[in-house]
Amino acid sequence: MASRLITACVTTGPVSTAFSDDAVLGAMLEFEVALARAEARLGIIPASAADVIVRAAAARDFPVDAIAEEARRTASLAIPLVNALVDRTEAIDPAAAGYVHWGATSQDVVDTAMLLCVRRAWATIAVDHARLIDSLTRLAAAHADTVMLGRTLLQPAVPVTFGLKCAGWAGALTRCWRIWSDACANLQVLQFGGAAGTLAAFGARGEELEQALAEELGLAIPDAPWHAHRDRIAAFVAASGVHAAAAAKVARDVSLLMQAEVGELSEQGGGSSAMPHKRNPSGSAVVLASAGRLPGLVATALSAAGHEHERGVGGWPGDAALVADALEAAGSAVAALADVVDHLHVDVDRMRQNVEAAAGTVVSEALALYLRQRVGRRRADALVKEALTVVATSRTSLAEAAASIPSIAEHLDPADTPWLADPSTYLGSAGRLQERLLDAAARQDSSGEE
Amino acid sequence: MASRLITACVTTGPVSTAFSDDAVLGAMLEFEVALARAEARLGIIPASAADVIVRAAAARDFPVDAIAEEARRTASLAIPLVNALVDRTEAIDPAAAGYVHWGATSQDVVDTAMLLCVRRAWATIAVDHARLIDSLTRLAAAHADTVMLGRTLLQPAVPVTFGLKCAGWAGALTRCWRIWSDACANLQVLQFGGAAGTLAAFGARGEELEQALAEELGLAIPDAPWHAHRDRIAAFVAASGVHAAAAAKVARDVSLLMQAEVGELSEQGGGSSAMPHKRNPSGSAVVLASAGRLPGLVATALSAAGHEHERGVGGWPGDAALVADALEAAGSAVAALADVVDHLHVDVDRMRQNVEAAAGTVVSEALALYLRQRVGRRRADALVKEALTVVATSRTSLAEAAASIPSIAEHLDPADTPWLADPSTYLGSAGRLQERLLDAAARQDSSGEE
Amino acid sequence: MASRLITACVTTGPVSTAFSDDAVLGAMLEFEVALARAEARLGIIPASAADVIVRAAAARDFPVDAIAEEARRTASLAIPLVNALVDRTEAIDPAAAGYVHWGATSQDVVDTAMLLCVRRAWATIAVDHARLIDSLTRLAAAHADTVMLGRTLLQPAVPVTFGLKCAGWAGALTRCWRIWSDACANLQVLQFGGAAGTLAAFGARGEELEQALAEELGLAIPDAPWHAHRDRIAAFVAASGVHAAAAAKVARDVSLLMQAEVGELSEQGGGSSAMPHKRNPSGSAVVLASAGRLPGLVATALSAAGHEHERGVGGWPGDAALVADALEAAGSAVAALADVVDHLHVDVDRMRQNVEAAAGTVVSEALALYLRQRVGRRRADALVKEALTVVATSRTSLAEAAASIPSIAEHLDPADTPWLADPSTYLGSAGRLQERLLDAAARQDSSGEE
Amino acid sequence: MASRLITACVTTGPVSTAFSDDAVLGAMLEFEVALARAEARLGIIPASAADVIVRAAAARDFPVDAIAEEARRTASLAIPLVNALVDRTEAIDPAAAGYVHWGATSQDVVDTAMLLCVRRAWATIAVDHARLIDSLTRLAAAHADTVMLGRTLLQPAVPVTFGLKCAGWAGALTRCWRIWSDACANLQVLQFGGAAGTLAAFGARGEELEQALAEELGLAIPDAPWHAHRDRIAAFVAASGVHAAAAAKVARDVSLLMQAEVGELSEQGGGSSAMPHKRNPSGSAVVLASAGRLPGLVATALSAAGHEHERGVGGWPGDAALVADALEAAGSAVAALADVVDHLHVDVDRMRQNVEAAAGTVVSEALALYLRQRVGRRRADALVKEALTVVATSRTSLAEAAASIPSIAEHLDPADTPWLADPSTYLGSAGRLQERLLDAAARQDSSGEE
Repeated sequence: MASRLITACVTTGPVSTAFSDDAVLGAMLEFEVALARAEARLGIIPASAADVIVRAAAARDFPVDAIAEEARRTASLAIPLVNALVDRTEAIDPAAAGYVHWGATSQDVVDTAMLLCVRRAWATIAVDHARLIDSLTRLAAAHADTVMLGRTLLQPAVPVTFGLKCAGWAGALTRCWRIWSDACANLQVLQFGGAAGTLAAFGARGEELEQALAEELGLAIPDAPWHAHRDRIAAFVAASGVHAAAAAKVARDVSLLMQAEVGELSEQGGGSSAMPHKRNPSGSAVVLASAGRLPGLVATALSAAGHEHERGVGGWPGDAALVADALEAAGSAVAALADVVDHLHVDVDRMRQNVEAAAGTVVSEALALYLRQRVGRRRADALVKEALTVVATSRTSLAEAAASIPSIAEHLDPADTPWLADPSTYLGSAGRLQERLLDAAARQDSSGEE
Repeated sequence: MASRLITACVTTGPVSTAFSDDAVLGAMLEFEVALARAEARLGIIPASAADVIVRAAAARDFPVDAIAEEARRTASLAIPLVNALVDRTEAIDPAAAGYVHWGATSQDVVDTAMLLCVRRAWATIAVDHARLIDSLTRLAAAHADTVMLGRTLLQPAVPVTFGLKCAGWAGALTRCWRIWSDACANLQVLQFGGAAGTLAAFGARGEELEQALAEELGLAIPDAPWHAHRDRIAAFVAASGVHAAAAAKVARDVSLLMQAEVGELSEQGGGSSAMPHKRNPSGSAVVLASAGRLPGLVATALSAAGHEHERGVGGWPGDAALVADALEAAGSAVAALADVVDHLHVDVDRMRQNVEAAAGTVVSEALALYLRQRVGRRRADALVKEALTVVATSRTSLAEAAASIPSIAEHLDPADTPWLADPSTYLGSAGRLQERLLDAAARQDSSGEE
Repeated sequence: MASRLITACVTTGPVSTAFSDDAVLGAMLEFEVALARAEARLGIIPASAADVIVRAAAARDFPVDAIAEEARRTASLAIPLVNALVDRTEAIDPAAAGYVHWGATSQDVVDTAMLLCVRRAWATIAVDHARLIDSLTRLAAAHADTVMLGRTLLQPAVPVTFGLKCAGWAGALTRCWRIWSDACANLQVLQFGGAAGTLAAFGARGEELEQALAEELGLAIPDAPWHAHRDRIAAFVAASGVHAAAAAKVARDVSLLMQAEVGELSEQGGGSSAMPHKRNPSGSAVVLASAGRLPGLVATALSAAGHEHERGVGGWPGDAALVADALEAAGSAVAALADVVDHLHVDVDRMRQNVEAAAGTVVSEALALYLRQRVGRRRADALVKEALTVVATSRTSLAEAAASIPSIAEHLDPADTPWLADPSTYLGSAGRLQERLLDAAARQDSSGEE
Repeated sequence: MASRLITACVTTGPVSTAFSDDAVLGAMLEFEVALARAEARLGIIPASAADVIVRAAAARDFPVDAIAEEARRTASLAIPLVNALVDRTEAIDPAAAGYVHWGATSQDVVDTAMLLCVRRAWATIAVDHARLIDSLTRLAAAHADTVMLGRTLLQPAVPVTFGLKCAGWAGALTRCWRIWSDACANLQVLQFGGAAGTLAAFGARGEELEQALAEELGLAIPDAPWHAHRDRIAAFVAASGVHAAAAAKVARDVSLLMQAEVGELSEQGGGSSAMPHKRNPSGSAVVLASAGRLPGLVATALSAAGHEHERGVGGWPGDAALVADALEAAGSAVAALADVVDHLHVDVDRMRQNVEAAAGTVVSEALALYLRQRVGRRRADALVKEALTVVATSRTSLAEAAASIPSIAEHLDPADTPWLADPSTYLGSAGRLQERLLDAAARQDSSGEE
């Protein structure tokens, strides 16, 4: 059991609470109560028995430690939980005890309880995600004309706008969210199959009961009980990983742009226990630490998905912990990133200065293309190389260097080479692409709840 | 470069061919040709130049080894490829050489070429998947009434039908296929952004060219160039992993049911280099070996997805190899599994014998529930335990044991306990669940191309 | 924060306790106390200040929740902990507060505290491992002559002994333990480097203080502070994964041999919440669920190991949680496996019966080799195939089948083919190999604990 | 089969050649030849038969494609290889054909052949590693006094030396190499066990033959055949991952220090297909792309290590490809990094300028500690904060700011605060730590070849 302290940077309070002992116990009891009610409703068990089970389940004294210990001995959280519920039911009315967990199996309660916990966790993550997209959209709108260096392989490239960068982040996160929320919806289906997934104990009434139970719990009904088919879990954990990767990209970019030598963005940040002058990308660090857990967790989920026959040996007992780990880490990444973006300081001047510091070299592409049309490829490339050498040695700008080389200068027409005078204008379709990204994000947003 | 021999069990000929040197070279040239054509069509480059580029790209003498070596030096497959195409274009008409790769960047050609290779690989995988689902559906229909042991934690549980088992496999594979083919469709979007993703070289004509190029290549247009946003790749590789996990579950089940001591299924199988009597689950072994590569590859894809700024340092140069590895392994799993299922021998007698060998103990659940309604939980559980002890010590059936214990016998009504006489009837909703699974698979099939 | 219930099957009480909030808080304070003492000893800070710090650290009222929350904000568990200690020190003597955490940095306390927690966890794992090897060694000795089917690809192969199988398990676990304990010893080195790893605050006295601090804490001294070099952590987590894989192999084998249809081993096991007759390989399930977490955790550790410059952005804040997760899961696998093996029931009769049920076919290799020497390869292989067909169709033994085929019978000399009459004798070097394995395990054991 | 082009950045020629079809075929035949020779030497098979087998194995016409196809059908590379060798032997002398592969099993040849391929690959990696350590050691020596910014969380921290940084890289790589080369040595043990690992076909002569075969192949002898115990493979792949992570850290640091805005290091680098001015960290990109494959491959190796019984179903057929992938990627990282470091340009002036640009703020720690001794913690911290605000607003240095604040100035004694005038002197034990690291690396080097 990882402690609060040791996991401080890779989970959040609200998501971890959704998988706390109280929450897990509550969700398992919620299943047992719903089962009893649904069975009573259909006359499968006596209504009086259901009433007693409901009362017994309301007890506050379920022994967490003893249940955990016995769960480890039996490789099933359900067995000690059911036993504890039977004890409490029996104490009220022995006759009712026979109807506890009627016709259900361990996976029915444990897997369905996991879904109920996921549902709670998801609600809080969805809020953080929405906040994140909102902030990015606002930033993008505000900085549609803020020119900054594009950077490829960490080196200056042609300029982009900070608005486009924000829109790109938002676009990716929005696409990932759609996949993740689809996977979450696909997962919110009742697991109820009885001993081997045939609803055997209910004879011809299995489907009817399944329907009633799903209604009690507010869950959809799958094509069939999924106890031994963990594809929905695997897909959900995988989608958590895809979203977290998109979040990590943003945090990586922010932390790089916050380097003192770059200075274009800054987080509210945190300090250092040693150095008073430090302002650290602490929020990005939390995003990266949290998101960094996902690839491994996804690998685990995929490896664990192949349950043998009608219930696996080793796959199942770890699944709920795995789902919790994945949601806590992915949720932590979303929450931390939303905080980072909410309080992001954009240094527009520094962005401009960094473009200027590149002295126009970043439009060398434009110059090369321009000259190729006029003097052919080899000659053009040689001339651009010559101009770049002048820039490097004389600490002048590419425009000045080009003007100083007659074989280039003779071809330059200011009307056709505005980017030479002002590289910030070499933006191509940046504006349109930003619009397209934000439109897509907005469509996504309005098209669905989640 | 892994060799044919060493990868024999984790790829297939058709899928690996889609990523062969010829295919990769061809796809990159296909991009450059399409680009030249689209640009000529819009008057961005001279039509005559495009014609020459097309002819140059048709050359058969691109130096694979030299390109590979230089790719490693520059961390870009595009640079040596473009240089080689420039050389060949220049040899035909120097003036045309200036227009090769006009306004594009390395990622445009490498990433888009990867998509073209994926498209070819996908076509062959889709055929194998369809064959697999067909075979499973046929098997399910044929064995809707073939009763066999359910098995949980590798121990006998209440009976199921082999038809339901096949339908369960088909259901999971169908669900996974939907996710995988959605992810594939999402990925089939042109990457074309120029140096830093703004289509800078084309001024106001970027979108127009993007449209023309996408048409040439038969690809969709994304919200924006995705060079630095690898979520689609990550989601596609992840979906490959989810599908492979579902395939692995089937292979695991088959190999377990093929154990000599179980003997319910058998593969056509392969032999042994040492032991003439051996008949091995070789097909299942290939499925498991292939599918076993995916969790790690997915983890790699997720970790690699966070490209810095407008093009990452280390993420990009390995992406195409990763996608190829994932598709080859996942495709190998599908193909091998389709072969296994196509030739699966079902030993219906052995299934029945194994149910009978359990001597009715597998309906102990039913007996317990039956008795709990009559004598309460504690008493019922004690009586069932007593009966099971009789079975274990006297090698009799549960029915006989129950009949021999007066406190049980007095409650037994044959009309209400048919499962005691014949455990094969204790099937609950197995039939209906099979129908629901196959209906869902059929709907999926008819609803879409893929 | 994963709860006790949800992680019940993937950790153990003792190991999780080593990473509990109390333990983590205690270990961090242990570092700060040792630092103050060492600094006072060398006269770097006043002895009186150290005394006050020691007293302040003894307080029981450190606010875990507030520290966790602030840790998330600053991406450092150290900052709020140091602040809390400063507060408590100041409350006793303001002058002493200046000397808290003197010259140290966040990583010094957090990383070193992690080592102290690992040391505690390790002690309990080592006991479980020793118990496991003892039990396997005893089992091996007891079953040196217990013949059972070898099985390859889950099909009957030539016979082995259960003793050899146990010795093989013990051998692998012993080899893995050596690697794991070496990695643990390599990791037990003080992290103490100050702000950027140069011990800058101590001028020329850094090494002296390092020595004193290491003595206080009972840790070795590394070549240099390892704050940004996480290879020791990566190697330790990786070694946890290698050991867990060896444990998983044993559990996999046990669970397969416990199948009702095989019946050669049985665990004490657990029951089912639905089916009274079930006896499940619950211990093996816990081993497999626990060990199954490791591959993913190792991938995470390797991906996280590349900290930037003198302290990474995202790698560090998750490291302690990762190490805890890995040790908890690997420790859980060892503990559960030791329990399984301690109480393993070996059904020697069933092993013999299963060999007999193979009707001698498992020595088809021996017959083929024997005949090849006499009639050449093609003829021999055809004859063996003929004999195997007789066995399959007439339900006779290979010995009888061989005797019934004149072209085989004429070559058979009972003195040279004892394995035909009794396949159990076809054991080759099984005995010697078992001895070699156990000798190696014993040597390892006597060569030193760690 | 991934192509040369697609894997260009994640393997090297020499390492991939060690796993080429020729190499794999050659290694398998080397095993069969060594087996025949050893058996002939001991009189187990006729010497004349061995001679013929040796001649047959020398044929150049083994059908790679057909072997690969049949390998996939049988899940064993050995079966078609042995058949092909039998055919060729028979063509020379039918009598000899009976003795091909005598008493061996598929895993014996495939696993041992894999080791022979690894041995070849290892030799080339070892040369690259040695070159890398040499270059780093030389760089460290040359830059023992080159002061540069330490950087934590990508922000300026107290200064370090570039020599210490190089020594830190070398130290980690040296530690990882020791683990990796130990794992390689542990793996270089013959796999030879016959059908189920008991050397059954050789009666009492198994150990004698094992000895002779190991001599033929130059391999050590394990405690027992390791066919079903893959811990050595898992540990070797894991160690590849640990080493690659250490290499990735160097490449990450180099690429960050090569950012135009930082400019302290530069690689020889590569260009861009779009932008003539670009100088990219292409070598680092190849290191990162290659090393990035390892975490996933290690996860796969760990998951695949649990082979069932005496030979697993799915684990084995993929092992050789996995080992090849891991060595190719890890070897590619080492080779590329050695190239990067060999040609690394160090801009000592820029390092100094970047330290100066921090205006002394990086010794805020020193000032705080200094003042705490004189005015207590709270007051000192407030004064340092005040000074830092002056620096930030007046663009002055910390020294000037401190001098301008009387409450600080009154305590400043230049003799005790040399770091204020020159932050470059605030280096603590940097020099000694560098020595210790290089001494350890040198000891390692002289202690063994590997």
